[in-house]
Amino acid sequence: MTNFDRFLSPMGRRLRESAIRQMGTVIASNRDMISFAAGYPDPGSFPLSDIRDVVNELLSGPDGDVLQYGPTRGHRPLIESIVQLLTSRSISTTPDELLITSGSQQGLDLIARVLVTPGDSVLVELPAYTGAISAFANADAHLVGVAQDEDGINLDDLDEVYQRERGAGRRVTLLYLVPNFQNPTGTLLTQAKRPRLVEWAKRRDMLIVEDDPYGSLYFGDVTSEDETRAIRSYDDGGRVIYLSSFSKTLAPGFRVGWMVAPATLIDRFETAKQSSDLMTGSLDQHLVHELLRRGTVDHIAPRLRRVYQRKRDVMERSLQAHIGNDLEWMPPKGGFFFWATLPDGTDDVTLLSRALDLRLVVVIGSAFYVDGTGHNRIRLSFSSCTEDRIEEGVRRLAAAVRGATTASVRPGP
Amino acid sequence: MTNFDRFLSPMGRRLRESAIRQMGTVIASNRDMISFAAGYPDPGSFPLSDIRDVVNELLSGPDGDVLQYGPTRGHRPLIESIVQLLTSRSISTTPDELLITSGSQQGLDLIARVLVTPGDSVLVELPAYTGAISAFANADAHLVGVAQDEDGINLDDLDEVYQRERGAGRRVTLLYLVPNFQNPTGTLLTQAKRPRLVEWAKRRDMLIVEDDPYGSLYFGDVTSEDETRAIRSYDDGGRVIYLSSFSKTLAPGFRVGWMVAPATLIDRFETAKQSSDLMTGSLDQHLVHELLRRGTVDHIAPRLRRVYQRKRDVMERSLQAHIGNDLEWMPPKGGFFFWATLPDGTDDVTLLSRALDLRLVVVIGSAFYVDGTGHNRIRLSFSSCTEDRIEEGVRRLAAAVRGATTASVRPGP
Repeated sequence: MTNFDRFLSPMGRRLRESAIRQMGTVIASNRDMISFAAGYPDPGSFPLSDIRDVVNELLSGPDGDVLQYGPTRGHRPLIESIVQLLTSRSISTTPDELLITSGSQQGLDLIARVLVTPGDSVLVELPAYTGAISAFANADAHLVGVAQDEDGINLDDLDEVYQRERGAGRRVTLLYLVPNFQNPTGTLLTQAKRPRLVEWAKRRDMLIVEDDPYGSLYFGDVTSEDETRAIRSYDDGGRVIYLSSFSKTLAPGFRVGWMVAPATLIDRFETAKQSSDLMTGSLDQHLVHELLRRGTVDHIAPRLRRVYQRKRDVMERSLQAHIGNDLEWMPPKGGFFFWATLPDGTDDVTLLSRALDLRLVVVIGSAFYVDGTGHNRIRLSFSSCTEDRIEEGVRRLAAAVRGATTASVRPGP
Repeated sequence: MTNFDRFLSPMGRRLRESAIRQMGTVIASNRDMISFAAGYPDPGSFPLSDIRDVVNELLSGPDGDVLQYGPTRGHRPLIESIVQLLTSRSISTTPDELLITSGSQQGLDLIARVLVTPGDSVLVELPAYTGAISAFANADAHLVGVAQDEDGINLDDLDEVYQRERGAGRRVTLLYLVPNFQNPTGTLLTQAKRPRLVEWAKRRDMLIVEDDPYGSLYFGDVTSEDETRAIRSYDDGGRVIYLSSFSKTLAPGFRVGWMVAPATLIDRFETAKQSSDLMTGSLDQHLVHELLRRGTVDHIAPRLRRVYQRKRDVMERSLQAHIGNDLEWMPPKGGFFFWATLPDGTDDVTLLSRALDLRLVVVIGSAFYVDGTGHNRIRLSFSSCTEDRIEEGVRRLAAAVRGATTASVRPGP
């Protein structure tokens, strides 16, 4: 077979695959596999009957607009609805600061391409979302980690890292973070630090990329909506680029996300999007707009919070019951993930290998670290499994942590 | 207002906007504007009732897969259906050589990123599709034009251009072309040249990017399906990367396209797609797969060919009747476009300006040329207008070509 490597660009050679997406392939290959790996939303929560009603209405309309090409910027009524939605989240913006993206991942990719000069330092949390790491790495960023505390990014370390990178002669313009129920740690960045981050960005002439997929999935027993207020809501100088999507609040299959940024940057992102995919799917955008307009998004949000809170409880109780002495974790206040520390002497890759033998898949902690550490961690998603499967999965995990092999546990249901 | 230009990467500064997409904004701003600009398919031909049936069935299914995250590579049954579809087009391939893309535009973007090293020469036809020009230019390619004859790309000029670029010390690895009813010229590349292109690519160690959005929209009165047989069908050595989509054969709003390439390159494109948008919309992919499986795509193809052939006839007759002495053109044998040469002394930008005054929009020829020429050409799309509007648009065009101003024609219907 011909070797095509000589045709690759430097980016083509550099490409990084997401560890999480690799896990997806593993899951698909075995029906009895339990997945705590991918952060898939609960499919039972998709508002299927509302979606059916809306699609039928859209496809019975007088014109074919709903299936036609449309503006790269996005379906205008959807943009306006999102401006309203953001107002209810204390974010004041206008349509000229908004771009519809094909999921938040596209927002990350556009930011990386339009704002990262090869070799630039990009600051990310330790640990950080792998999809952001890939997008920045593919743009040839030099990724640098900043420590996180229990209440989110450590501001002292942030400034130290900034100064060290600048001192090394590198351009540093971007800080990426997920303030609400972070991926992978589940951490909620305390409100107290949020305005301070904006001040810091002004002082250091930085832009902050605030990625907020999980903000509305807070758990009412331990936190509240106020605690999820966006960093962007404290920003009056265009320092914060805000990303979110409907992947976790409606369904990820639509691929409808958005970004908020200063108008002059949005123009650039729009032009970059134009040559990336021309536009986000028309039917999907019309659907999401109608579901917003009819109140479906607002209506299902409390149910989603209850569903995920209950699943968190199930995972918490199962972990306590089966594995409490061997793992350490903090129960998350929202979102999809438990972030656990393995017992001394067990590393993530070995644990994953054992777990796979027991038909369980998790994500290795080291995949989220840009500094090569994290081998004593794993990420456990509780979002898509049924409650029974969560419990069975934790049993398998307990066996894997104790070093069991295939032979030592019975096949699951 | 803060100036954010200092944050831009070299790519961010270099970004090129498509002239065609700019025109889209113009159209949207005036309801009585007639557009011969954008190559939108005829919305009256979207198979709405079939789509409604399929959506209802998909959304009534037992699981939420149809709205869930899915593999970056694409919905497996769709991939397998496309392999079958390609077999019927004499293209022999396998699922491991296929990637679902978010429209063909994403395929172009992935190719540009994964295969173009900044400064590489990329060979394109003179003139060429603006979306491809943007994608390659954004990857910092050095775009070089190759002459086209009435039967497609000039093979002598192709090799001369190749040798000249190599002689100048540049890396040259890609030739991009649209063999069937080219955008913008409507040219059909003669079959005789197709195997010769594959041989040339082998001899010169080049890859050919064959973009085929219009292949199935041939006009039976002047050509046949055999004449549209893909370059890829003559290729047994992985020299041809083949792109197509359902944008012109079902509806563009789905954003479902695909690329065929050697498996090792498809792996790279898949990884690049992963950090670009994770995946193409699930509902859209499931829909397109069902429409293929039920035969809707095959069923509507003859109707689409008749619809566009009739519109071509209307534009041809109108041009003959109103403007035959002032414009030169070749009636296209398929696709969406007339490509016209303006009278001596009239340039495309002036003509567009006059046309806009008369509420008509066309695309300036120079937008399609990478060498700065083409100012004596315009592209006229007949695909999306009704027959009445085509005729009225040609009347406005005739007035614009004759140098009329707003005052000299009455407002249209």
